[in-house]
Amino acid sequence: MKTRHDFEHMDAHDPLRSLKKQFVLPPATIYLDGNSLGAMPFDAVERSRQVVEDEWGVGLIRSWNDAHWIELPTRIGDKIATLIGAGKGEVVVADSTSLNLYKVLSAAIRLAPQGRKLIVSERENFPTDLYMAQSLARQHGFTLQLFDSPEELSDLINNELAVLMLTQVNYRSGLIHDMQTLTAQVHAAGALTVWDLCHSAGAIPVDLLGANADFAVGCGYKYLNGGPGAPAFVWVNPRHADKFWQPLSGWLGHEAPFAFTTDYQPAPGIRRYICGTPPVISLATLECGVDTLLAAEKFGGMVALRHKSLELSSAFIDLVDTRLAEFGVRVQSPRDPALRGSQVSLSIEGERDGETYAVMQALIARGVIGDYRAGAPNLLRFGFTPLYLGFAEVWDAVEHLYQVLQGEEWKQGRFHKQGAVT
Amino acid sequence: MKTRHDFEHMDAHDPLRSLKKQFVLPPATIYLDGNSLGAMPFDAVERSRQVVEDEWGVGLIRSWNDAHWIELPTRIGDKIATLIGAGKGEVVVADSTSLNLYKVLSAAIRLAPQGRKLIVSERENFPTDLYMAQSLARQHGFTLQLFDSPEELSDLINNELAVLMLTQVNYRSGLIHDMQTLTAQVHAAGALTVWDLCHSAGAIPVDLLGANADFAVGCGYKYLNGGPGAPAFVWVNPRHADKFWQPLSGWLGHEAPFAFTTDYQPAPGIRRYICGTPPVISLATLECGVDTLLAAEKFGGMVALRHKSLELSSAFIDLVDTRLAEFGVRVQSPRDPALRGSQVSLSIEGERDGETYAVMQALIARGVIGDYRAGAPNLLRFGFTPLYLGFAEVWDAVEHLYQVLQGEEWKQGRFHKQGAVT
Repeated sequence: MKTRHDFEHMDAHDPLRSLKKQFVLPPATIYLDGNSLGAMPFDAVERSRQVVEDEWGVGLIRSWNDAHWIELPTRIGDKIATLIGAGKGEVVVADSTSLNLYKVLSAAIRLAPQGRKLIVSERENFPTDLYMAQSLARQHGFTLQLFDSPEELSDLINNELAVLMLTQVNYRSGLIHDMQTLTAQVHAAGALTVWDLCHSAGAIPVDLLGANADFAVGCGYKYLNGGPGAPAFVWVNPRHADKFWQPLSGWLGHEAPFAFTTDYQPAPGIRRYICGTPPVISLATLECGVDTLLAAEKFGGMVALRHKSLELSSAFIDLVDTRLAEFGVRVQSPRDPALRGSQVSLSIEGERDGETYAVMQALIARGVIGDYRAGAPNLLRFGFTPLYLGFAEVWDAVEHLYQVLQGEEWKQGRFHKQGAVT
Repeated sequence: MKTRHDFEHMDAHDPLRSLKKQFVLPPATIYLDGNSLGAMPFDAVERSRQVVEDEWGVGLIRSWNDAHWIELPTRIGDKIATLIGAGKGEVVVADSTSLNLYKVLSAAIRLAPQGRKLIVSERENFPTDLYMAQSLARQHGFTLQLFDSPEELSDLINNELAVLMLTQVNYRSGLIHDMQTLTAQVHAAGALTVWDLCHSAGAIPVDLLGANADFAVGCGYKYLNGGPGAPAFVWVNPRHADKFWQPLSGWLGHEAPFAFTTDYQPAPGIRRYICGTPPVISLATLECGVDTLLAAEKFGGMVALRHKSLELSSAFIDLVDTRLAEFGVRVQSPRDPALRGSQVSLSIEGERDGETYAVMQALIARGVIGDYRAGAPNLLRFGFTPLYLGFAEVWDAVEHLYQVLQGEEWKQGRFHKQGAVT
């Protein structure tokens, strides 16, 4: 049986350990929620100061040209492209994941074979994806059908399918859907794929072009460490990019925004997926976050990060099995590393399911930060971010959870009051 | 004839002069482009540092509750409401002006009398407004008809009209459309109004409820001083707010976002106009900007600001008439103060129209920052922001423009190369 010493040894021999220096993390904190909000890159402090004080305060309106604000959506998009197997000029940063989904799903349902009216997604997809799809389905006479199991999904990939819209890594369980195989199956059925990479980008190697996917969107503030509510990204396979005027046709997606012409003419390629004026300060810190991942290139990039991520989460699962099973704690994420994203979710079996929220709050009060996701079952969710997480921290997190479950601190009233964000 | 001394005297007796201390402006700069990007409030430096270093860096995910990030869209919305004649709980901050227009215009065309398929707007409306309307018109079988004159507008307000969509203050000329009268006429014709307040909010007194308007949107980064690309706001008359599921139905507009339910159920009232996760850092500096306007409350608020704005722009027009007419410079904004927003646009008559861009660049090189707007005629555009602009600066700006027009510096090649943002 392993000891904390073994975990310390793994840290000492971790080839990626120097990457943690890129971040500022609070003392006495074990941060296992980088899948909800990534930690703050050290450079974000100076960069945001620079954008506010120098570029806004001194440069004023001139900074759109002189500080290259106008290029941020494409410049950062090109950097993200390298993390998701997309080409240069194929990705832009714009708006939110929800809004980018609206754009690409609008395109996908238009480009699907005529007469097909079925959008398929997972019941446990992140809700905003379903809400945006419901809106488009309502407007265009489509049906959104949700599957609960791989078998149901398989049955739905047939000649009635228009679009399969999936979050590649399930936000609750961390299950990875096989992008390559599913895309091929969907294409064989004559339909199109829309991939949400919120829990993939910066978390696992993604190869959009290799999978020949059709559309993808993703979030800037999780594994990309872009800051709270950082803008999202959108990718369209170049073979589709010029085919459709996405409906959120704002001026910065126009072919010549500063000609101020009356009629919308979309920019060629992905730039037409930009809509209005972007929030520059939040965009700037997103670039700092993306750069923390690019800094891993010289250590093997996403492949090396993925390797460490699985070592971390596998070590966590082993400890949970050994030490927490007696409390009814069960692993709800895939045990097969090939199927598991960069997170592990746990449930508490039986009637203690109702204590899940309070247990997480008690854990957070100890400085071990994961999050709670309501559902059936309720989940304790832990993200493993190899850029800034070490092995001894995994050990300590399980020790804290053991102490919380063994003790009674979670029974305190203050741990039961749910905040607006849980 | 007035002298610079007279302008200095006006500064010395300006009851609002202390408000300038709220801003940091670069030395040797006369900033006449607050209608494109408002100046930086002093407090934005510390606030953005706090959000980045303390709330993100230390608070991490906990800051959604502990630092009240989740409340920013409604809290800042309530502050903006006081500047535009809206009630508490009626305004939210979200996304961009373009996207908010898409939401409210979707609602307006749905709520208009059945069978009416006409959206009317101004040919010289800001292009993104027209582009968003074109998208919705295309999708829903509506026609977007553009008017060029008040007479044409008047003729179009009839029983075929569905929605009149207007920017209250024209971005080129600064002409104020009469919200009260037009709304009454449009309602008498059985139709609805959508108002873009990009050049109104923080610039002129606005009374949405008094005018009984239907929908409004506006920008955070112009007269509200919210920072580059700051998020926008949206207002819906309470009588309409619950009637329509706006199509950009993201999770933060759900009645219970953290219940993570599969089906979209819109939040009551204006909160359903929120879509995805907002860019928190840019939201935070927006609040600093809005606060600079609320600080004027004790000096008479928007009424006092409006008074000074017109004194500034009237003084500017007088000087232009006196000193610049010989160069063919013509005022393209309304001379009647009641019809003029917080800007003055100038053209250069005849063949010198083609020099307009270079003249503005030469002026900017002297530290007098206005902007150029291409069109017929091309325009030198100057914004007058009473929070931080003084009368002597108006004098000096005209003196610089005189010198530019009289001399030959604008002929330098570097002033002719148009950047991405002009």
